[in-house]
Amino acid sequence: MERITKNTRTVIIGAGNVATHMAKALRMRLNIIQIFSHDIENAHILANSIDCTCFTSSIDDISKDADIYIIAIKDDAIESLISKISNFTHSSLWVHTSGSKPMTVFEGKMNNYGVFYPLQTFSKNVEVNFQEIPIFVEANDTKNIEQIKELAHLLSPKVYDADSDRRRQLHIAAVFACNFANHLWTISDELLRDTNLPFSILMPLIRASVNKLDKVSPAQSQTGPAVRNDTKVIEKHLSMLSDNKKEIYKTLTNSIIDSANKTNL
Amino acid sequence: MERITKNTRTVIIGAGNVATHMAKALRMRLNIIQIFSHDIENAHILANSIDCTCFTSSIDDISKDADIYIIAIKDDAIESLISKISNFTHSSLWVHTSGSKPMTVFEGKMNNYGVFYPLQTFSKNVEVNFQEIPIFVEANDTKNIEQIKELAHLLSPKVYDADSDRRRQLHIAAVFACNFANHLWTISDELLRDTNLPFSILMPLIRASVNKLDKVSPAQSQTGPAVRNDTKVIEKHLSMLSDNKKEIYKTLTNSIIDSANKTNL
Repeated sequence: MERITKNTRTVIIGAGNVATHMAKALRMRLNIIQIFSHDIENAHILANSIDCTCFTSSIDDISKDADIYIIAIKDDAIESLISKISNFTHSSLWVHTSGSKPMTVFEGKMNNYGVFYPLQTFSKNVEVNFQEIPIFVEANDTKNIEQIKELAHLLSPKVYDADSDRRRQLHIAAVFACNFANHLWTISDELLRDTNLPFSILMPLIRASVNKLDKVSPAQSQTGPAVRNDTKVIEKHLSMLSDNKKEIYKTLTNSIIDSANKTNL
Repeated sequence: MERITKNTRTVIIGAGNVATHMAKALRMRLNIIQIFSHDIENAHILANSIDCTCFTSSIDDISKDADIYIIAIKDDAIESLISKISNFTHSSLWVHTSGSKPMTVFEGKMNNYGVFYPLQTFSKNVEVNFQEIPIFVEANDTKNIEQIKELAHLLSPKVYDADSDRRRQLHIAAVFACNFANHLWTISDELLRDTNLPFSILMPLIRASVNKLDKVSPAQSQTGPAVRNDTKVIEKHLSMLSDNKKEIYKTLTNSIIDSANKTNL
């Protein structure tokens, strides 16, 4: 296996949140020779920010002779992109960073491939500390898994094996834990506007809710009107909410009550 | 107004999570003379833990001559409890700690009353740092509001005025931000069981999601398949979920898509 060095020629395919954070974290550790994005402006911005002089929005112009290609684009676009790529060097290693796409999207097209899934939420303009981030890897053979692990270890000490099924299950858990929780905070923010209080007033509560999870399971940590079955409060709250907020309140309250009943059986 | 001192005779009505944390935080700052709970065992445990020798489960035996009564029981039980209380000293100050009950539950029964609402999630066995907790107060006159503020300042520097409407709106925001978010973490925990990974694997992701909110609004912080409108991923996830998890996934995904559409208009 080729060791990964500062000379390892790497193409980043994508210029969104994941691509941007990965490119910035990897730029000093290997040689990023090109950024590809369908949106040439985004490709330009990311290339500029990491002092990479080469970027393109044309799939045909993606470098043919890189050592590693890292695909970090919207999940829905991965298969279509792979199908359009041709004439690359067959020794190259290809990885995607998706939680939900199986490794087999590369099958029959590439020789050396795998997945490199960082379990994290990436937003532009918000720094991430890769040292804290678990990275889940798989590959189509033992040589490639070693190289992908080496790539992952450039960013984080927390590298775990996960086949496609395990990774997809992890991804769904992460959608609930992060994406959906964040949407509830968006709703809280909207509700607070009527009180003229800033969202920051909720931060100690949110942080305390998270810190509790270091000590007890989330099921044991549950508080609030639903788990107490405080029906008058629940009814009053429902009467004050409209549309999608009411729907979410009802769905989550019923689920909390169901969970509590199961635990008490 | 009487200043609150270590001699201020105080009765804690309740022995649940809120009552327990408040009693423990207040015990060195005023004189807790009695714990009441409908469950005599809980009253005993809490009284013991704060070296208070007097506890009761009989409403008729609640001390008649305390300076302050703090009601920290299930919201649904507050009105019924107040209706059963009689013959107390009319100069006493009564407060409840509920987010959702209006101050008027005391009207016509007590002379001096108000609300003392700590915006926090309390679980037995998990320490809280009251210094971080915002406390929202209201009272039936200016003398009482000063005394309740003094009581609140014994625990936290963050004391705010909030009438019953504002407090209820805050409470709903807190239910979404804390109770509902916690239930999503319970679901993540259940989903992870199939992967043989511990819930702690998600903690860096959850902490990063929270830390982002110090810098950008939750709406700006939103990531994941729903906000990207990654329909294939969403459909795949739905096909892997059952019952209440599927229902929650659908409801929250639709709400995220709606929010994103409104923002983009």
